[in-house]
Amino acid sequence: MTMPLAIALGDPAGVGPEVVAKAWERRQSRGVPPFFAIGDGDAIAAVWSGPTRIISEPAAATEYFDEALPVLQVGGGESITPGSPNLGGARNSLDSLEMAVGLTRSGVAAGLVTGPVSKSQLHAVGFTHPGQTEFVAERCGVSADMVAMMLVGPTLRTVPVTTHIAYTDVPQLLSIERIVMRARTTVKGLQRQFGIEAPRLAVAGLNPHAGESGTLGSEEVEIIAPAIERLREEGFDVSGPHPPDAMFHERMRRTYDAALCMYHDQALIPLKTLHFDQGVNMTLGLPIVRTSPDHGTAFGLAGKDAADPGAMIAALKTAAACAERTSLG
Amino acid sequence: MTMPLAIALGDPAGVGPEVVAKAWERRQSRGVPPFFAIGDGDAIAAVWSGPTRIISEPAAATEYFDEALPVLQVGGGESITPGSPNLGGARNSLDSLEMAVGLTRSGVAAGLVTGPVSKSQLHAVGFTHPGQTEFVAERCGVSADMVAMMLVGPTLRTVPVTTHIAYTDVPQLLSIERIVMRARTTVKGLQRQFGIEAPRLAVAGLNPHAGESGTLGSEEVEIIAPAIERLREEGFDVSGPHPPDAMFHERMRRTYDAALCMYHDQALIPLKTLHFDQGVNMTLGLPIVRTSPDHGTAFGLAGKDAADPGAMIAALKTAAACAERTSLG
Repeated sequence: MTMPLAIALGDPAGVGPEVVAKAWERRQSRGVPPFFAIGDGDAIAAVWSGPTRIISEPAAATEYFDEALPVLQVGGGESITPGSPNLGGARNSLDSLEMAVGLTRSGVAAGLVTGPVSKSQLHAVGFTHPGQTEFVAERCGVSADMVAMMLVGPTLRTVPVTTHIAYTDVPQLLSIERIVMRARTTVKGLQRQFGIEAPRLAVAGLNPHAGESGTLGSEEVEIIAPAIERLREEGFDVSGPHPPDAMFHERMRRTYDAALCMYHDQALIPLKTLHFDQGVNMTLGLPIVRTSPDHGTAFGLAGKDAADPGAMIAALKTAAACAERTSLG
Repeated sequence: MTMPLAIALGDPAGVGPEVVAKAWERRQSRGVPPFFAIGDGDAIAAVWSGPTRIISEPAAATEYFDEALPVLQVGGGESITPGSPNLGGARNSLDSLEMAVGLTRSGVAAGLVTGPVSKSQLHAVGFTHPGQTEFVAERCGVSADMVAMMLVGPTLRTVPVTTHIAYTDVPQLLSIERIVMRARTTVKGLQRQFGIEAPRLAVAGLNPHAGESGTLGSEEVEIIAPAIERLREEGFDVSGPHPPDAMFHERMRRTYDAALCMYHDQALIPLKTLHFDQGVNMTLGLPIVRTSPDHGTAFGLAGKDAADPGAMIAALKTAAACAERTSLG
């Protein structure tokens, strides 16, 4: 029997519960792999009238998955108003995440899918990590520096070297070492989780036109090109630094397996421009498979039956496919 | 009789001559409007064996356009090797540009289309402007600050507030005043050249997630939002600051007529990801219509019959359509 995926529901007042329920509804039409939700079942009931089934252990999920959305209850009894986050909900999303990581690590779930949380709400209840990724890394005993966030769409994979930091802080965080580490994690992830034997990486420049040989910024000459050189010495198939605006069109996308980007929006703009409703955020470098839909809590949409489950379905299918490859490898 | 467009050929060793010749070849199949090339006819002969016709005045271009590619000769006698730029070629591209601007200003050409030049070669022959745009603005008696570069594709128009500067220099150049000026120029351009009566502008943030209320950078709070406020007070239809990665997908693109972007790649990445071979660079705020294909000299491709004329054709068609609206308006 297929091992189910574990979904942490995310903030109960966000669109997480709705997209999880809608993904379950499409389990047959879209070929969604078996999963169970971890969180407050009331959050699902608040936005969806379909059948849920409270389970007490992950193994039961696969058994009931055809008839009802399996829920492993965490917390409960808190008031939930879709679109209006509160601290109880933030606490619940954190407890659910912690349990989901634990179950996946212990091997009773095939992989972890995390629903969207509110970072400002989480910080208000004492969460000190920049995001879920760093929390998951820590709980897996991996330094946050050793993992990489990969955005996965049907025709493009991107990995930002720096992530959720202000525009102006990017240059001082770029270093040869950091680029090399992200590239290594990316290559290993493409091999283990995507089954690509000799991954091809395309590395972006930081500046317009990749700096035009140093006349439009020095980072390509001083940091990015030397990092590429070092990666080649290690035997990797790496091209670049590429002019950032000329590397994401169709012909170029066919020439690499992942683009290594210097900052958040350089990775996210092309991905979301092309694949807004199908973007999957995947963490490479962990001992478990972890994906999440590449959208936020969208509190403004919550409770209106308007959220698109496409990215959640993509996150589930990507996690299942990667989990299968990883266990084989 | 339709007034022809003037094309400055650009660097004779780049792909300019080839894409101009190929655009002429497709004059009927693609409905390319009448034009004449300004530059060294030998640059065309070096990469193309089709018929050219040397003309001595623009009016003759329309007459001969059906049978041959009309060329207004500038310079000549220099050695031209496609793919190998030299200073004579840079000088020639500058002389051609100057004549093309003059003819368009004097009203004997309907609009100006500029082929790709090599900035480093131009700077070596004493050109002191950052690019062709600033040169054209000066020759038209307009301050470079008052013009705006608009990238035009079939489903997206973007205007970068800052252009060819290093990544790290962007924040210090952003100001309320600069954003407001670019927005005004953009709105006026959309009205006059695109016939859009009440243009809708979407303004991007600078930081990931548009700064998350100041926690990921302060520019949205201190500069961008106040600029939007001021534009609204002036009666403009302006939205934002938008999270940069969530504003270029299909649904969002339908909600605005142009996106005002904070830096080069924020504007160019989505445009070229979607419309690599059709991107048109247009200068707004000039007394003339000016477009150019949104690609460079591509010296590596020159002379190999491998250049795609799609962007040159789009630049010609956009210029003709805008020129017609402008003369009506």
